[in-house]
This record gives sequence, C-alpha cells and structure tokens, in this order.
Amino acid sequence: MLEINLDQLRGDIRRWLREDLGSGDITTQLTIDSASTSTGTLLAKSETLLSGLDVVRLVFEEVDPSIEFEPLMLEGSRVSDRDKIAVLRGSSRSILTGERLGLNLLQHMCAIAHTTSKYVARVEAYGCKVIDTRKTTPGLRQLEKYSVRVGGGYNHRFGLSDGILIKDNHIEAVGSIAEAVRRAKVGAPHLMKVEVEVGTLDEVLQALDAGAEAILLDNMTNQEMTSAVEVIDRRAIVEASGGMNLERVEEVAKCGVDLISVGALTHSVSAADISMDFEL
Amino acid sequence: MLEINLDQLRGDIRRWLREDLGSGDITTQLTIDSASTSTGTLLAKSETLLSGLDVVRLVFEEVDPSIEFEPLMLEGSRVSDRDKIAVLRGSSRSILTGERLGLNLLQHMCAIAHTTSKYVARVEAYGCKVIDTRKTTPGLRQLEKYSVRVGGGYNHRFGLSDGILIKDNHIEAVGSIAEAVRRAKVGAPHLMKVEVEVGTLDEVLQALDAGAEAILLDNMTNQEMTSAVEVIDRRAIVEASGGMNLERVEEVAKCGVDLISVGALTHSVSAADISMDFEL
Amino acid sequence: MLEINLDQLRGDIRRWLREDLGSGDITTQLTIDSASTSTGTLLAKSETLLSGLDVVRLVFEEVDPSIEFEPLMLEGSRVSDRDKIAVLRGSSRSILTGERLGLNLLQHMCAIAHTTSKYVARVEAYGCKVIDTRKTTPGLRQLEKYSVRVGGGYNHRFGLSDGILIKDNHIEAVGSIAEAVRRAKVGAPHLMKVEVEVGTLDEVLQALDAGAEAILLDNMTNQEMTSAVEVIDRRAIVEASGGMNLERVEEVAKCGVDLISVGALTHSVSAADISMDFEL
Amino acid sequence: MLEINLDQLRGDIRRWLREDLGSGDITTQLTIDSASTSTGTLLAKSETLLSGLDVVRLVFEEVDPSIEFEPLMLEGSRVSDRDKIAVLRGSSRSILTGERLGLNLLQHMCAIAHTTSKYVARVEAYGCKVIDTRKTTPGLRQLEKYSVRVGGGYNHRFGLSDGILIKDNHIEAVGSIAEAVRRAKVGAPHLMKVEVEVGTLDEVLQALDAGAEAILLDNMTNQEMTSAVEVIDRRAIVEASGGMNLERVEEVAKCGVDLISVGALTHSVSAADISMDFEL
Amino acid sequence: MLEINLDQLRGDIRRWLREDLGSGDITTQLTIDSASTSTGTLLAKSETLLSGLDVVRLVFEEVDPSIEFEPLMLEGSRVSDRDKIAVLRGSSRSILTGERLGLNLLQHMCAIAHTTSKYVARVEAYGCKVIDTRKTTPGLRQLEKYSVRVGGGYNHRFGLSDGILIKDNHIEAVGSIAEAVRRAKVGAPHLMKVEVEVGTLDEVLQALDAGAEAILLDNMTNQEMTSAVEVIDRRAIVEASGGMNLERVEEVAKCGVDLISVGALTHSVSAADISMDFEL
Amino acid sequence: MLEINLDQLRGDIRRWLREDLGSGDITTQLTIDSASTSTGTLLAKSETLLSGLDVVRLVFEEVDPSIEFEPLMLEGSRVSDRDKIAVLRGSSRSILTGERLGLNLLQHMCAIAHTTSKYVARVEAYGCKVIDTRKTTPGLRQLEKYSVRVGGGYNHRFGLSDGILIKDNHIEAVGSIAEAVRRAKVGAPHLMKVEVEVGTLDEVLQALDAGAEAILLDNMTNQEMTSAVEVIDRRAIVEASGGMNLERVEEVAKCGVDLISVGALTHSVSAADISMDFEL
Repeated sequence: MLEINLDQLRGDIRRWLREDLGSGDITTQLTIDSASTSTGTLLAKSETLLSGLDVVRLVFEEVDPSIEFEPLMLEGSRVSDRDKIAVLRGSSRSILTGERLGLNLLQHMCAIAHTTSKYVARVEAYGCKVIDTRKTTPGLRQLEKYSVRVGGGYNHRFGLSDGILIKDNHIEAVGSIAEAVRRAKVGAPHLMKVEVEVGTLDEVLQALDAGAEAILLDNMTNQEMTSAVEVIDRRAIVEASGGMNLERVEEVAKCGVDLISVGALTHSVSAADISMDFEL
Repeated sequence: MLEINLDQLRGDIRRWLREDLGSGDITTQLTIDSASTSTGTLLAKSETLLSGLDVVRLVFEEVDPSIEFEPLMLEGSRVSDRDKIAVLRGSSRSILTGERLGLNLLQHMCAIAHTTSKYVARVEAYGCKVIDTRKTTPGLRQLEKYSVRVGGGYNHRFGLSDGILIKDNHIEAVGSIAEAVRRAKVGAPHLMKVEVEVGTLDEVLQALDAGAEAILLDNMTNQEMTSAVEVIDRRAIVEASGGMNLERVEEVAKCGVDLISVGALTHSVSAADISMDFEL
Repeated sequence: MLEINLDQLRGDIRRWLREDLGSGDITTQLTIDSASTSTGTLLAKSETLLSGLDVVRLVFEEVDPSIEFEPLMLEGSRVSDRDKIAVLRGSSRSILTGERLGLNLLQHMCAIAHTTSKYVARVEAYGCKVIDTRKTTPGLRQLEKYSVRVGGGYNHRFGLSDGILIKDNHIEAVGSIAEAVRRAKVGAPHLMKVEVEVGTLDEVLQALDAGAEAILLDNMTNQEMTSAVEVIDRRAIVEASGGMNLERVEEVAKCGVDLISVGALTHSVSAADISMDFEL
Repeated sequence: MLEINLDQLRGDIRRWLREDLGSGDITTQLTIDSASTSTGTLLAKSETLLSGLDVVRLVFEEVDPSIEFEPLMLEGSRVSDRDKIAVLRGSSRSILTGERLGLNLLQHMCAIAHTTSKYVARVEAYGCKVIDTRKTTPGLRQLEKYSVRVGGGYNHRFGLSDGILIKDNHIEAVGSIAEAVRRAKVGAPHLMKVEVEVGTLDEVLQALDAGAEAILLDNMTNQEMTSAVEVIDRRAIVEASGGMNLERVEEVAKCGVDLISVGALTHSVSAADISMDFEL
Repeated sequence: MLEINLDQLRGDIRRWLREDLGSGDITTQLTIDSASTSTGTLLAKSETLLSGLDVVRLVFEEVDPSIEFEPLMLEGSRVSDRDKIAVLRGSSRSILTGERLGLNLLQHMCAIAHTTSKYVARVEAYGCKVIDTRKTTPGLRQLEKYSVRVGGGYNHRFGLSDGILIKDNHIEAVGSIAEAVRRAKVGAPHLMKVEVEVGTLDEVLQALDAGAEAILLDNMTNQEMTSAVEVIDRRAIVEASGGMNLERVEEVAKCGVDLISVGALTHSVSAADISMDFEL
Repeated sequence: MLEINLDQLRGDIRRWLREDLGSGDITTQLTIDSASTSTGTLLAKSETLLSGLDVVRLVFEEVDPSIEFEPLMLEGSRVSDRDKIAVLRGSSRSILTGERLGLNLLQHMCAIAHTTSKYVARVEAYGCKVIDTRKTTPGLRQLEKYSVRVGGGYNHRFGLSDGILIKDNHIEAVGSIAEAVRRAKVGAPHLMKVEVEVGTLDEVLQALDAGAEAILLDNMTNQEMTSAVEVIDRRAIVEASGGMNLERVEEVAKCGVDLISVGALTHSVSAADISMDFEL
C-alpha cells in the first residue's frame, strides 16, 4: 500500500484547522478549564471499513502534541456498529478543539474505503481490479486515493503528470486517434505507457493499430465490451469506465476487462457515522 | 447572499491545480498544438441547481487568463438535463488542463445547492430555516456554505470563533449546563449569543434557567421537540438536529422549531452529473 | 482568558525573525564563539503590567530550542522598576539573536496591558467594562487583544466576521437605520447579535425600534449618554465610544453604559521600558 | 528616499486583510447591495505629516482593483486639521471592507513621520541626523523606516545582516572591546564598517584604538559626549543614543555628534487622527 | 516540447528575487532617479544555444510589469559571440534590479541546452536519445529539464512519482531482481512501465525473466552493452548510464542502446557568457 | 565562519523534497517493506573538500527524524577517493527517498569548496583574499556562499541590500562616477562603505576623488592593475574582477590587490563524485 505524504498532510491539517478555528475555539476556551483532562473515544455508529486512523492521530498531534492517541483497531479492519475505534487522552480543550476535523476526515475516508470494498467484492473473482479516477475532492486527492487502496481498490494515475491518457477531447482537438497516439508515443517518457479512450469497436481497432498500450472503453454496452476484449486479445490493457454502479459492475467484470474505474468511489459517498464519546 | 472570499479562493485553486497537474499535463502537451483553440461547453446531464459558476470561471482564469468564459445560465437557476451552463473559448491546451478541476468543483457545489433546495422546499412553509453544520469537507467550507445559501438554506456559525455553541462534551467537561452557560456568558463578546445543546426536556429547562439564548434539541423525538418548543415559548431560538433526512424533515418543522441543521447537506451528497463538450 | 493561537504565532515569529535577521546576525556570528553560553535577564526599568511572557519564550524557542527560559514573575503581575522578569540560559549567540524581537514584543504587550489596567481601574466600580476596537496594529491583533484581557479589559469582536456592527458609513449607504438593521437581522447567523452605531437620541430610538440588540453611542456628550441609557432601559447593550481618554472615562462610566471602547489601548501606547542584562 | 518593497508589502497586506476579515465582512455583506457605489474621503482631524498614501492605495487595490484612488495631497506634505488627503470611488462594499486596515496603517505611518520631523527640526541646524533603531513593530519595519525617511530622518541598519554593531552584550561575551572589534574586522565583508557601543570615555579610546569606524555613545551625559566628540576628532562616525526625547535632543546635537538614534520614533507614537467620510 | 509550469515559476522567481534583493537594491535606489528610463541589451559573449528567453521575460515582469521585453532571437537558436539576444526598455531602476537574476538563469539554462546539443550531435545518427537524470540542481529541476529538451535531449522521469526505476539499492534491500520486479509489477499503476538497473549480463537475464519493461545498463563496458542489447533483442527498452562524457558517448550509441542518460548535462555545466549592455 | 540560516534551509529542503517526490517515491514504496532497515554510507569517489555535512543531515531529518546520521569526517576536511564521509542508519525506505537530494546538495557544495580552495592556495601568500559574487544559483545562495567560506574564501555582499557597489550600468545611468558616488554617500547608511567599479586608470582617479571607499578593477590587464594599486595607495580597498581563472589568478594577486572576486566559484563547477553505498 502506498504511503501518504506526511509533509503535505501536516500542512493540509494546519490549513484545515485554521479554517475551522478562525481566531480560536471560543466556546471551549470560555467554558473549560485549561487544566482539565479527558478521554475521548471514537465510536462507530454503523458498519464501515476503517481508513484514516493515522490521519486522525496527526490532527490531534497538530492541535496538541501532548495528547495520547491509542488505536483500538487496525487500519483496514471491518468496523461494526458500536465498535470502539480509538481512544484519546489529554487536555479536554485540545480534544474538543480537534474533534470536528478529526471526525470529518475519518468519516469521509472510511466511507470511501467501505464503498470501494463493496465494488471489489463484486469483481475480484473475475481477476478484475477496481480503480479510482481524477474525480476526487479538490485538496483531498491523496487521502481519497489512499482510502481506495485500503478498500482493496487500485489507483489510476495520481494526476496529469504521471500517466498519459488520451481522452475524447484530446482526439477531437488532434483530429484522429492515430495521430494523437503517434504524437504521444514520440514524446512520452520511456517509462510511461499510452492509454486511449474509445467509444466504439472501430475506435478500438484504430487505437490498437496506433500502438496504444492501454485502452479505456468508455460508456460501452456489456456486449460491446465483450467484443472489444476479444479483439484486443491481451495486446493492450483494457479499462472499462462510464456509469458504473454496484449493481452493474459484476456484469462488466464478466466481459473480461482488466480494470473498472469508478468516479463514484470518491465523488459520491455518504459519510460514515462515527462520533466521539467524551468523559472526564 | 454572503460573498466568497476571493483572495482565499484563488490561493485554494492554485493549490488544487498543483494537486492535479503535478509537474504538468503531459498528455495535452504531447498531443495538442500550443496554438490550437477550441470551444468547451459545460453541459448538464441530469437535473440540478446551479452553484459555482464564478468558481469555475476563476479556475480557468488561473489556468490561463486569456480564456473567455461566457455563462449561459444564472447562478441559482434550476438546471435540466441537456441544459448548456456555460461556454469556454480559447487555447485547447488550457481548456483541457482546467477541465477536471472545474468540473469537480461545479459538480460538488451544484449537488449541495440542489440537495439543500429539496430540504428547504419541505420546511419553508412552516417558517423554519434549513441550516448547515461544521460537518463540511476540510478545505471546502466556504464553497460548501455558499452552496447551501444558493440552495435557499442558511449558515450556522462559520467555525469555532464566530459563535458559541456548548455541546454535550463541553457540558460533560464542566459538570452542568448551568455552570457551562454561566462561564460562557461572563466571557462572551457582547455581540455573541450563547447556544446550548440539550437532549431532554429537563435539560431544556436548565438551559433556559441559565440564560441560554438559543437551544439545540439533539436527537429528540418529534413529540419531545413539540413539548420543548412550547416550554421555551420564544424565550430562546430553537434548533433541531440529529439524524435529519428528507423524509423526516417536514414533521420536524411542524414541531415549531426555528432551525433544522443537517450535516448531510455537506458530507453526503452525490456529485451532479455535468460534463464538458469540446469542439475545435 | 482566551488563548493565543500558537500555530499562527509561531508562523508570525518566524516571519518577524526573518525581518530582523535578513541573511543572518553578522555581528554576533563574527564576534562570539558558537560554543559560548550566557545568562540573559529580562529587567524592568519602569513600572508596568506583565503581558507576553509566553510570547518571549516562543521567540527564543524558535531561535534555538535548547535555550532555557525561566520566568521569575507570573503573567499579569504588576512589575516595578528593577524587577527581574525572566532569565534565559544557553548559547550566547542565540540569546543575542533573539533579544531584540523578544524585547520589542514584550515592551509593546506590557504597555497595552498596563494602559488597559489604568482604564479598568477608573470604571470597574460602575459595573462598566473596558473593551478594545479594531484599531490594532496590522499583524498584531491577537497579541494586542490578548494584552487587553491581561489588563482586565474585554474584547470587542475579533474582526469583521465574528460580529455585526452597523456603523455610520453602512447606514449612509443603506439609507436608514431601520432598513440596515432589518437587512442584518434577516441574514444574520442565529448566534450573532446586531449592534448599531448612533450619534443622537433620535437615532437611539430608531435603532431600538428596529430591534438592535446592542447600541454604540458614538461621540456623544455625557448628558446625551445618560439620557440614552435611560431610554434604552436595558433593552439593548450600551457601548460608548469616541475620544475616550483616562481623564474622561470615569464620567462616561457614570452615565450607566455597559461598555466603553478605547482605540488608544492599542494604537497609541508608549513601549514599556524593559531591557536584557547579559552575563557569561 | 529608499523604496518600499512592493512584493513583500502586497503579501503583508493580504495577510493583514485576512486578519481583519476572517471568513468575511458580514455586516457589509448583509446590509449593503453589491451594486452600490460610494465615495470615501480620507480626512485629517489633527495636524500631521503625510506618510503612507501608496500603502493605502495598495490596501484598496488588494480589496478590489476596480476602486479608484485619487490622492489630493503629496506624500510628505504637512497636513492640517480638516485637510482632505485622498478620495476613493467605487463599490461601497469594497470601500467599507478596506477602510479599517487603510486607516490603521495611515494613522501609524503619519504619526511616525510627524514625530520624526519634530526631532529633525530641533537638530538639523547642527548638521546632526536623526536615525531610527531596530525597536520597530514586528512585521512593520519597512513601513516604519520608510516613514522615518518621510519625516526627514535617516535609517540605521535595516536588520542584523546589513550592518555590524557591537553592543554591550557582545563585548560582555567576548571579554573586551579590542578583541570584539578585532574579530569583526577580520571577518567583516569589505563593504561594511564596524560600529561599537561604548558607555565611557575610556571605552571610546579602546574602540578607537581597535579601529572602530563608528562609535555609539550610549546613555552618556552631554558633557561626556562633548568630550568624546573631541577625542574622536572625526576618526570615526559618532552616534548618540539612550533616553532621547524631544526636549533633550537639541542639547545632544550641540555636543557635535553626527547621528542621534531614537527608539521612540517607532515604538511609542500616538496614532494620527484621520477618518473616512463616506457618501453615496 | 513540454511546457514550463508558469504558476510555479512565478513563485520561484519571487523567492529568488527576495534572495538577491533582501530589504532592497540600495545602490540603485540611492544613485538612480526613479523616473530614469533605459535600454538594456542581452549580449552573448561566446557561442551557446538559446534557452530561457521566457524565463528572463518573467523575471523582469515580476520586478516591474511595465518593462518592455523584445526578443531578438528565437528560443532554441544557435547563438554566436556578440549576438544580441533581447532588448529591455523601461525604468532604469527596474532593469538594474532584475539584471543579475535574469542573467544567472539565462546563463545556466543556455549552458545546459548547449551541452545537451553537443551530446545529441554525437549520437542521433544511431537512433539513440540523450536523456537527463534526477541529478539536477535542487529547486531548478523544471528549468533544467526544459533546457535539456531545448538542446534536443529527452527527459527521464521528472521525479520519484512518475516512473518506476528499481536501482541497485532497491535490489539490495529486497534481495533479488526477480522479487523486486515482481513487487513493482503487482502494485504499479497500469500506465507505468517498470525499469531495472543492472550491472552484469546475468542481471540483464534476470531482469528480462522477471518481466522488466526497461533495463538500465549501469557502468558496463561497451562490449558488455553490445551483448546486452543482443540478448534483450527489443524485448525491453535499453538505457545506458554511468560515467558518460562527450568523448565516449558515440561508441556507446553504437552498442545499440535506445537511451543514454547523462548526469553531467545538469550538474556540471559552465555558465554561458552573456552580459547586459545598458544605455539611457 | 558565518552560520547557515536553518529556518530558511529547512523550508528549502522541504520544497526540494517535494520537487523530487511529487506524489511519492513509488518505486521504494512498491518494492521495499516499510519495516526494513539499512545502512547507507556516503562514499567519495574522487578527491574533494567536505562541505555540506549538516545540510545532508537536515535532508534526512526532514525525510524521517528517526534516521541516525553519523559523520565520519569533519566539515572542511580534505576528502580522498574511497573515503567514507558519513553513515546513515534507519528505515530503508527513508534512506532511499532522501538519497538523491542529499547527494545533489553535497556534490555541489563540495565542488564549490574544493574549487575555492584551489584559488585560495594560489593567492593567499600574497595577502590577497578570494571572494565570491552574486553569480550564484538562484535559491542556493546561502549554501554556495557558505561553501566558499569552507574553501577558505570570503564573501562579497550577500545581496543588493547589504552593500553598495556602483557598477558600470549605474554610472551609465547617472552620467558620471563623481555624481554616482556623491549620491550614494549622501544617502548611504552610516555602516556601509561605497564601492565603485572602474575600467581605466582615469576612472580610478575619479572614484578616489569622489571618495569611494572601495574600488573594483574590472577586466583590467595585470599592468593596469599594478598601476591602479600604486595610485590608490591604500586610500581604498582594491578588488579585481573579470575573467579570472586558476591559471591567471596568482599573477593578479601579485599586482597587490586586496581581493579577487571569481564568479566561476559558484556558476561553473563540476559536481564532486560522491555516492551512497547501501546494505541491509
């Protein structure tokens, strides 16, 4: 599993804390003694998959390095309703100040991991991988792609600089699949493959002829995808995409594609229900 | 409608572009001539409520100030499937480079505005306002709270420094509602009201006695909320919260509460379906 | 007493050190051996009120975390000429490098706390609070507002986002007090009160009728303020402002106002006289 | 007159606006129509010396580049009570949002220029220059040193890296004036002179013998300074410092010193009284 | 040719200007009238290859947007001694302030492009490409890699995230080439190829067996490389590396490798001799 | 020896790591177990002079504070081929992630120190100092000037704000040496000397007459420089500059100049050959 970049994450967390804190947590400062200490327990209130433990730990570390954070479950565990996820001990003020950001991140990350795991369960028997897209929440990409991996999925390219994917709009601008692939292969760094998005079987053939090393079948019917997989015949990696959902995904995997990319893994999840129980 | 802080937004957009671009949009640079110009049309593919036009404009302005951006609909409009939202004209490279970030933001903001408007439609007849919470996506709070307003909702406090809300965990730490409210009222800036979260009718009475100026009824039954509203009798503002959803919200409004706060407005929406059509 | 935001303060201190250090403290590096250690004593040379101890500690912590900082007096103490405030022990180079920034901050913060305490002494017997304004030194607001609290004063809103104060120029733009207050009350977050600045008794009545929850009496005579307080009759909080000074402030308090706001607390103080005694 | 670094100033202004604005100017956004336009006039309410016109212009430029700023007086002009300094025209919201920061800076800068000019008037007949110190407000050094120049004063070194000044604490650490100067002269960049702080005539002689190129007479009596000037006999530049005030400074100039440095120019001024008159 | 990221470059240029300017260009401000205008001509004083014109333009744009910049030659041109490269017109102060940074960048970038072009000239007839490495100057990577392209070379991966290259130290840590390649291929994003560094013919075979898609021949003799190319027989891309210099590179190309990577292109060039002629 | 500003260096290192890492070191994360630990030895592969040990230590500290760094040689030592410079122990992943940046910096800094030491060896017997220029790599000035000092050289001014050097282009703009020096001396801070660049003996006389405290002889013949030194006769510091190289520099020193400034010390060095040996 790839690592989260901690240097960047720490900076993000500081920025997010500033967003929530503004000039300070006035309620907590007015009501709670600075010497008061407490215990906060992160408690699941519905089933989910645990992703983001270290992120929550870092949130509280940025708020107050003296807070103790004790995980009670392992990252990647399946979580049931009422499971205790982790315990925090330390300054009451600090725990309350970091609570919301910690929960907002954890609820979002668990939701992504959990959703991903459901997709994976439907397709893995067919040797097919579930991958994410660039349809992520601005500013949260590394955490969201990490959570996809926790859920058993894989990552598509991280961004525009670490993979070559010629999409319909590129082809529109260049004029033909053949020319677009030709240009890409001439200038591509030698460690990168060239992938092309196609919408018809005819375009599949054009892409193959042009030397595409991966082909993205966009919004095709299952029947078309089955034919495409046959035509391609392992000469290129095959990715399916477009309007994927839990119901349909198994049938797509049966078509023989290598990868199914799902935007909804990151742009349309419902927060996991997790809260913090607090006691002196 | 409150304004978006543009200075902050520009900085955020630059950071989000860096997240997606890394060391550069290699596909576009390899395939598309730097002199090529195009037209990109933002096209709705399902019903939604338009929020974020100016944000999209700013995204492309940061990518390339020479891109023309022509809105075809007004912010806050109801959008139907196949509606054209806006047109971009300019460098093909620049349009393709900004496309994903622009769409990611627009799809998320429209989804929030649209969802909010559905809640508002259920409760406005009862003189009840729909408000958001601090359960927002880290880094996107100002855009999400803005979209709630576009959808006809109102904003709770922006963050921890511009409103005093004594929650269960504060009360736990202080020992009693009475003492928590007393401390808050002694030190509160004179322009702030003090709100208290309660879970029972007895706590409602304690909060009123202590001089709370707003009371948050958390996870109460409709019957309890009706009683609470009667007891409070306009001596404090009444907010309802906890497990709100579209099905239930009208019955809550009938209880006579002033405000219903809904975390799902911001933490559990599904991206609106909007794409970019591209032609030379 | 509200807390200083340490994350922001550390960033500020680093920026301020860069301002003073430029490419480095050339005198110290040229003359003093890197292994030399010393003791520096912060010594008062006139009477003041101690504010900023932790800020000085942080300055030296940023310069060199190995410096020991031992306070000899408590924050908020009254300081007499020749009192020893704190002792620093560690690298001579580091102590000399941080000396000026530490003193500049301490001298300014003590001056504000001391000045505030003089105002408070004049009015507290009348149940009247001294509060600050937004007339603070750009970049130093949180430290200045903190020092006002150390001196026994209270804070007005921190900035433009955490309180609603309709001033003469807003009313001028809107056309009437009634309309300005109406607009504010419609859109104000439910945790904020609406305050209006007025200059005459007639305007006091307009503000009350419009539902203002706090009224700022600006540049009124003592007689007018006494009448205003009677008319308002506890239906709104009353703040007095405009041309306040130590001589006049007790008479203003006698008018019965709740709060007196004083810009001079932060924009016109003379630095406290504090120096550093240094020995090997 | 040396220039203000605009790149740095713009960054500072953005930071200062964020300090004041937080998540936004809620009063102005709630009450004033976004299409409303107004005129704001900067009006002096007491005598001062104009410093900071360009800084105010930049503040409003950062708030809203469409605001017109028309100066009515020249930088460095003497300003009388009721003089109109400049006029702003444009969006009412923008003018009100930038008003406080603009005034806070202008009032502080004019105060420094005005105070400096009073010192200069007392000593210039004696060929003596008034200079500032490093006792500036953290974060405002470049604006404060600029205002000293507007008032007819000169600047000591900007910070620790652009001048060598061996102070009492350095000498204490090194052991002797002779050794401290020797070390400094060995390593000093060839474009820098070495200045030494002394407190007695004997130390003046030590500094001269060691080859000091400038000598700072700290806290000496007028008689001692007169003797020091004679002894030095133009072999080094002579600076006087310590407890300077307007009353005493002419007598010090008569001692024949080249420079008098005054910390109070920057750390103990009272804000100039300037306000903004606003009309539609 | 790939584009320079301008958003990042502008930020870099501002930082580099601050490095050189400190608190300001004191010589220029003291001697030259702020109204003085001049013409500065960038003049080659030895043969080179032009790279960095736009970078120089941006430097002066950051210093003063009113400076006119007129290029007299095209990026990528061969430059002879005494050729005029570009002309600047505008404020004398601004031109002098930006001169050094502009020249430092231009001299370095031209040197890289020129050096690269010499390598390319030796090997292109053999169908072999010259590529750079990650041995770049910290902070200048995008400009250096751009200049390599201007000189006719190609880029290896930009950094650690956009290419998989298993080096000797990775193999040492994993235990075998086979296992290292296996792990990489399991987890690699589907758009990335896996390259392995080898030092012997035996390792070449191991890499091929493991499925490496590119093989880096490190510090091999020409004879070994010829054998390796034969063994690999186009089943993987072949890169040669280690101790390359202008003298040897043609013989290496003759071995049949696809790519030769040369660290010296970026870490060991001598600045091109270019100066600025200045006239009023 | 002057200190490196660590606050700035840490920020630079974080930026440089981001440049190299992008979204993460994918090869290392895919192949090497997160629990694996190793030893990395920095090994010289040619003769050089050690500069940058602390910088390398900080690089690895930023990557992973748990890495142990044990230097085996002292900063400033002469290094022979096969000398072990330092040993790193800790997480294999962390060592591999920081390896390239650490080596890039160390190789560049050693090269500068080594080159400088060769120049110093040629001229020190003549009482002449070798100094650097502002022809440094953008962003690396403090490290490069530090390495010059490690090599036995001295630093010219750090940047434009800590020294006054009137160059040919300034004189061109002002009209005469006399006027340029006059202006500089009127406004110069009292701790700075004024240096003037001249190209002929006649200009030397003009500079002396105008009161220049240092004179830079630019691109003069040895004979002209000898005459200039005689004419100046210790009334000003004498610096020689222009086309200096190792072969010529001793003859220049014999002319009697005080300082020789050499741009090539920083803009044209070849990286020292240092590598990292790695074992589990």
